[in-house]
Amino acid sequence: MSFYDQLKFDANGLIPAIIQDQQTGRVLMMAWMNRASLEKTLETGKTHFWSRSRQKFWMKGESSGHTQQVKEITFDCDGDTLLVQVEQAGAACHAGYRSCFFRAVSSDAAGFKITEKPLVNPDEVYQKH
Amino acid sequence: MSFYDQLKFDANGLIPAIIQDQQTGRVLMMAWMNRASLEKTLETGKTHFWSRSRQKFWMKGESSGHTQQVKEITFDCDGDTLLVQVEQAGAACHAGYRSCFFRAVSSDAAGFKITEKPLVNPDEVYQKH
Repeated sequence: MSFYDQLKFDANGLIPAIIQDQQTGRVLMMAWMNRASLEKTLETGKTHFWSRSRQKFWMKGESSGHTQQVKEITFDCDGDTLLVQVEQAGAACHAGYRSCFFRAVSSDAAGFKITEKPLVNPDEVYQKH
Repeated sequence: MSFYDQLKFDANGLIPAIIQDQQTGRVLMMAWMNRASLEKTLETGKTHFWSRSRQKFWMKGESSGHTQQVKEITFDCDGDTLLVQVEQAGAACHAGYRSCFFRAVSSDAAGFKITEKPLVNPDEVYQKH
């Protein structure tokens, strides 16, 4: 039986994919895949997604060079979320941080704080169009 | 500025929350929160969610006793995903596994394999109604 039969894509044909750094265990980002981007991810060993805001198929790192080499793909009990272990080149976040999760809610639950420094300057990584 | 102003709930008023075991780094589950469940999570220090299938507010562990003590909440660059570090009691998965991500896609990308044994028998943990 194909594992695709275990998956539930949502009404827009999408499934969320949590991306985790296999070496450190850090969660790097969450993005959405459709079936085509999942197939391309499996075929190439590099993560591919579907951008909901841009309505566009994209490969992580296609502009920045910060690609993700896939090490393992797991899926949850409900079949509606993917967890992808990767080897991350450079910064996972388009804002230049290693992980997109660089802001923590303060202990008083009112404000938040930035928990790390960016790895790279996004203006230098992404070409302006 | 409140961190709530940084968050983007979707058209149904929901935001996905990735739950990670703070001690081991293992991703345990992904579930959805609305603003009320996030507020309750912050207020009580235990994770609360919104079930899309049951259309119901719920606390993780309310039936099983397998609660999640919140250690840290971070949010991503786009403000549309939460990452919650927890101390997990027992099994995070309703199927009895420590993590909901207990199935891995095989290297030939055709089938899948179960990667661990359940911690508990769900029939003994969840009362039948």
